[in-house]
Amino acid sequence: MKRILVVLLCLGLLLTYSLGTRAKEDVTAGPNYSEETQECLDCHKSYTPGIVEDWLKSRHARTTPEMGLGKSALEKRISSDTIPQNLLSVAVGCYECHTLNPSPHQDNFEHFGYQVNVIVSPNDCKTCHSAEAEQYSDSKKAHALDILQKNPVYNSLVETITSLKEVNDNKIVHLKASDNAKWESCYACHGTRINFRGSKQVSTTLGDIDVPDLDNWPNQGVGRVNPDGSQGACTACHPRHSFSIEIARKPHTCAQCHLEPDVPGYNVYKESKHGNIFDSKKQEWNWGNVPWKVGKDFQAPTCASCHNSLLVTPDEEEIVSRTHDFSKRLWVRILGAIYSHPQPKSGKTYEIKNKDGLSLPTTFTGELASEYLIDEKEQTFRQTEMKKVCQTCHGTSWVGGHFAKFNNTIVESDKMVLAATQLLLEAWNMGLADQSNPFDEALEQKWIAQWLFYANSVRYASAMSGPDYAAFKLGWWELSKNLQEMHDLIELKGK
Amino acid sequence: MKRILVVLLCLGLLLTYSLGTRAKEDVTAGPNYSEETQECLDCHKSYTPGIVEDWLKSRHARTTPEMGLGKSALEKRISSDTIPQNLLSVAVGCYECHTLNPSPHQDNFEHFGYQVNVIVSPNDCKTCHSAEAEQYSDSKKAHALDILQKNPVYNSLVETITSLKEVNDNKIVHLKASDNAKWESCYACHGTRINFRGSKQVSTTLGDIDVPDLDNWPNQGVGRVNPDGSQGACTACHPRHSFSIEIARKPHTCAQCHLEPDVPGYNVYKESKHGNIFDSKKQEWNWGNVPWKVGKDFQAPTCASCHNSLLVTPDEEEIVSRTHDFSKRLWVRILGAIYSHPQPKSGKTYEIKNKDGLSLPTTFTGELASEYLIDEKEQTFRQTEMKKVCQTCHGTSWVGGHFAKFNNTIVESDKMVLAATQLLLEAWNMGLADQSNPFDEALEQKWIAQWLFYANSVRYASAMSGPDYAAFKLGWWELSKNLQEMHDLIELKGK
Amino acid sequence: MKRILVVLLCLGLLLTYSLGTRAKEDVTAGPNYSEETQECLDCHKSYTPGIVEDWLKSRHARTTPEMGLGKSALEKRISSDTIPQNLLSVAVGCYECHTLNPSPHQDNFEHFGYQVNVIVSPNDCKTCHSAEAEQYSDSKKAHALDILQKNPVYNSLVETITSLKEVNDNKIVHLKASDNAKWESCYACHGTRINFRGSKQVSTTLGDIDVPDLDNWPNQGVGRVNPDGSQGACTACHPRHSFSIEIARKPHTCAQCHLEPDVPGYNVYKESKHGNIFDSKKQEWNWGNVPWKVGKDFQAPTCASCHNSLLVTPDEEEIVSRTHDFSKRLWVRILGAIYSHPQPKSGKTYEIKNKDGLSLPTTFTGELASEYLIDEKEQTFRQTEMKKVCQTCHGTSWVGGHFAKFNNTIVESDKMVLAATQLLLEAWNMGLADQSNPFDEALEQKWIAQWLFYANSVRYASAMSGPDYAAFKLGWWELSKNLQEMHDLIELKGK
Repeated sequence: MKRILVVLLCLGLLLTYSLGTRAKEDVTAGPNYSEETQECLDCHKSYTPGIVEDWLKSRHARTTPEMGLGKSALEKRISSDTIPQNLLSVAVGCYECHTLNPSPHQDNFEHFGYQVNVIVSPNDCKTCHSAEAEQYSDSKKAHALDILQKNPVYNSLVETITSLKEVNDNKIVHLKASDNAKWESCYACHGTRINFRGSKQVSTTLGDIDVPDLDNWPNQGVGRVNPDGSQGACTACHPRHSFSIEIARKPHTCAQCHLEPDVPGYNVYKESKHGNIFDSKKQEWNWGNVPWKVGKDFQAPTCASCHNSLLVTPDEEEIVSRTHDFSKRLWVRILGAIYSHPQPKSGKTYEIKNKDGLSLPTTFTGELASEYLIDEKEQTFRQTEMKKVCQTCHGTSWVGGHFAKFNNTIVESDKMVLAATQLLLEAWNMGLADQSNPFDEALEQKWIAQWLFYANSVRYASAMSGPDYAAFKLGWWELSKNLQEMHDLIELKGK
Repeated sequence: MKRILVVLLCLGLLLTYSLGTRAKEDVTAGPNYSEETQECLDCHKSYTPGIVEDWLKSRHARTTPEMGLGKSALEKRISSDTIPQNLLSVAVGCYECHTLNPSPHQDNFEHFGYQVNVIVSPNDCKTCHSAEAEQYSDSKKAHALDILQKNPVYNSLVETITSLKEVNDNKIVHLKASDNAKWESCYACHGTRINFRGSKQVSTTLGDIDVPDLDNWPNQGVGRVNPDGSQGACTACHPRHSFSIEIARKPHTCAQCHLEPDVPGYNVYKESKHGNIFDSKKQEWNWGNVPWKVGKDFQAPTCASCHNSLLVTPDEEEIVSRTHDFSKRLWVRILGAIYSHPQPKSGKTYEIKNKDGLSLPTTFTGELASEYLIDEKEQTFRQTEMKKVCQTCHGTSWVGGHFAKFNNTIVESDKMVLAATQLLLEAWNMGLADQSNPFDEALEQKWIAQWLFYANSVRYASAMSGPDYAAFKLGWWELSKNLQEMHDLIELKGK
Repeated sequence: MKRILVVLLCLGLLLTYSLGTRAKEDVTAGPNYSEETQECLDCHKSYTPGIVEDWLKSRHARTTPEMGLGKSALEKRISSDTIPQNLLSVAVGCYECHTLNPSPHQDNFEHFGYQVNVIVSPNDCKTCHSAEAEQYSDSKKAHALDILQKNPVYNSLVETITSLKEVNDNKIVHLKASDNAKWESCYACHGTRINFRGSKQVSTTLGDIDVPDLDNWPNQGVGRVNPDGSQGACTACHPRHSFSIEIARKPHTCAQCHLEPDVPGYNVYKESKHGNIFDSKKQEWNWGNVPWKVGKDFQAPTCASCHNSLLVTPDEEEIVSRTHDFSKRLWVRILGAIYSHPQPKSGKTYEIKNKDGLSLPTTFTGELASEYLIDEKEQTFRQTEMKKVCQTCHGTSWVGGHFAKFNNTIVESDKMVLAATQLLLEAWNMGLADQSNPFDEALEQKWIAQWLFYANSVRYASAMSGPDYAAFKLGWWELSKNLQEMHDLIELKGK
């Protein structure tokens, strides 16, 4: 009797299991590929099998825009209301993406009978993902290259660091920084300007073929200026041909650029309790679900959950909406400038002018260029947005205590920078350093470290609760030691 | 014929599988929640869904103290012999934990009809986990805040590092360190003193509610002083509402505080062969098993296996017993003080008095305050305990060779600190530095780095076999370079 | 009707599943163990259960050389054509490996009736893995200890760093470096010389037993000199008794030695897009497949894929062949020496003589010792091999752009070292530093950091696209700052 029950139970289970399996198989079988994409695949599976397999495993290979349009508002992964007819009912394949908008694409070229763009740009992805492309285009990320190049202050910092140096007559001579040095350091993250230099012939296993000759390529920096004039590289976070939402949601992606010593976001996260839980339990979480359910899909936040993902409760109530402008939940900017300050109104921070006439959000001693920065109302709004995320796991009092501490840390870290600035001013006044380039002498480099490394680090550590980065690792220890060393160096030089 | 065999085999398999599944389902279905806990869940699943889901996935949600008491001695996860009757047969839920021992809890408050404690303290967890709470209460971890605050030497180090600095008349002026700066740096790991300041009103989506107004909150430092007077935070290692043994056993947990440059335990582990195997194979290990079977459940140790877990052989023979006093298998203390020394007898290290009258385990030149430190017999006993763990995978000769090297490293690293101390003494004697605060000048900071960073690092690297931390990364390279730089700085200052 | 279909489907599925399970079980049931190995296991499962379990999970426990010989050329994991008869049809067990070639093994000893070698050396593994042992024996890794010890320049660097220092009369005195200090730092990776000192008695739970007394043991450095005279330790990458190809293919293994600041290979990889994808998706990859299929088995490379694994396309076309000489796909050497240079012809780099008569691949100012280095033709060949790997995922133009940048970075980083060398020469000429030991003074240490840390880092960052290591983290920022600090130190000393 019991045995029969068990067998029946088994069959029920089996049924469930096999139905589940069937459903999954249907998805895997997937939609039709266009004839053109099939032709790309047939050839490239021999020549670049890695990306073909990558794409075959992607959602783009298993869905069509039409299927995407049919999803509910919360489940939708595409944001455009209408999609060109020819793309609607085939998989999102090689041909579909690499041939869009050919006319602005300077990198468009004839390739075995097709007119192909080398680079798929945000303007191309916009065909289906219009909201994301729009949000991104206004962000600091989209303008990341211009932020360095068009702002004389940062441009000078970049040039000073990356210029080749020679020693002549016991003096250090700064030569011009090469495109190469900037490309592989600062611009690797900020993006390069991809220039079309003409056509060139390359030798391949298929014989010589003509391809566009591109400058500063390859590059996937977030502010890349593409050959079609658009800004950004979606592949910076959704890499290569898998376009994976899982990868973008995992902190390793952000870690490529948000690393100590200058932007220790990932390092602080790793050391926080959130990072501890992530590292211990990530294998059990649902990384691909849209919308992303707090508690159900994941039990501790990653960079994406706090900063840009659409989050819902297990009952599908929306907590915060999706954004691809990554400062939309940030009220204060704690990195990259001499002092912290309210977020800039525009992503084009090189358009700021402070009282000294420089494109910086504060003066040398910390006075805000307020007209270029968001006002208190907007700051409160954004802080409230962020608090909504925190409060899905933490009580109101907890969150309040956390932010009160953070706000105080911002004030104290800025004061520790001001002290360093005063020492530098003194050295300049005494002729112990030369103000003409504020970035090239040892004392000035210590001053840079005070704000760009240590004050940043303490603020990140406070914001995300990674204590070592507020203590011995780039934190208060370094803030205090560095100040002392600046003082001693001035004393030794002045003897 | 073969086919019939296969089908029979299938059915057998299916039977096993479905029985396995049933058993698992029974656990998942789990015990009854108390009515009170159910009421908490009904409301909080809307307001803090993250922690509700976290708890629902926890063992606490799927078991009762009664079920725990029924386990064999080795399998038991609770150590109290008797549990209050009202807790026995319901899941370990919100109400059960957050309402224990209300009278000492200054943070107890009326919350929608219940008297709730904000913080569940070690004294509350002790209800079921008495052995663990007892062991912990004697450990250095439980006294981690007092160790900094009640010892004038360490208190002065903390104040010197975290005090706000101003520049006045080209001099650095140390202001008083704020609670805030200490809270987010040193005390983030060591724990804060949570003071009850009274009641306050907070705005929530349910309207304004009254909650306790707590100082230095939130904090999960290991030596937190709780509003009920108890010391410690079990959540430091068993975070939030999953109370996961898996998370506690994974090294990312320890990594939150045991990080370079001052306590590079995690960094050295990551770089060791143990860490290499952990990172490569952890996904296949059984992280939740109690008792934990060497070789069966895991093939390389983590922090927990060596330092505190109950370990058994695959045949369930006990190798070492569980302890929540994390130095019970440690004979020598290799971090945090100027010189290495035998482990202190008591976790209250601020009660030590050395020959100079300071609360340090050695004098300035390394003489031991022996009466406060464990004797040779106890050292041998603890080393033998640790060796038992090593010898589950390594032969006697291997283990002997390893510890001989480690013991020699301890001696040599202490000598490298002594050399730095002698240079500092010289500088003080020559008036090139001011002894009144031994922690604030550049030369003194180099001396601190010699023992707190580099000598520590070399010892950790030796103890756990992570060679880079004995070499170029905070190791012998830095020990030697730092000494040379101290020498040069004295020379330049003395010119 | 549909229901019947489903049930039939279920049974089909079940059949497949159960057959798959049976097949797997057959492997698990595995081959016979030799009687001797069985005896080892019977005893050691009580005394060192960890390694017994480790071995039981290994491929060696589940296969025989005979089974290995039967595989196709691409699938083969052993490379010897003939295997001794007595080993052919039993599992590769304790007895089989630990008793090979007893006569050269100074560490051979009588152990409960068997003559056992403590250390299984590359010469023993060669019995089945002859091609790998041959390749390895010519590599720099095999000679890693000699490279430090037999080259007076590097030997002096090691001694200077690891020597114990005393302060006498305000001067730093370098004592002789202990074997111990070298063993746990430089030689931990490079390997120690394991000397046989005779026999010794150790106390075990089985009573006192006699075992070989070995010097500098334990050690798993890649250039270990074994008691049988062979060089290397296969366990450096295939650790302990699992001999796992999965572990060897995962970058954590290489990370044990290839770490910042001196060899930041792992750090740069972690930060690269390859590392980002690895960290995000590794749990889905097939880590044990031989041959390893690009795209199918993994979607982003690890250290092993680029540097030594046999790679094939999904259609099993060979891309690159397996090698255990890890520089066979490397044309330029970017680490460890003052300037970058073409790879040495021989792994015995201590045999090089440059124009100054030193065993270095370049002179002090960068002139190549060309006759000891591979020629342009070989450089082109190796670069082409590496490009084959890149081109499985990246187009010709992409790969060309990447390598052009890398080649330029090599030139620029060498120039930044030359500038530092010129400052050092000046200091020596002016008597501000003493050339007799070029490694012990603060200024000289800065010069070392310029080439050993920062120039290395920039080149790695360029080669593997981890931008922070070309920028603020040990990159151009440090190259420029360090140069400036050398300049300032000379100025201060010369005042």
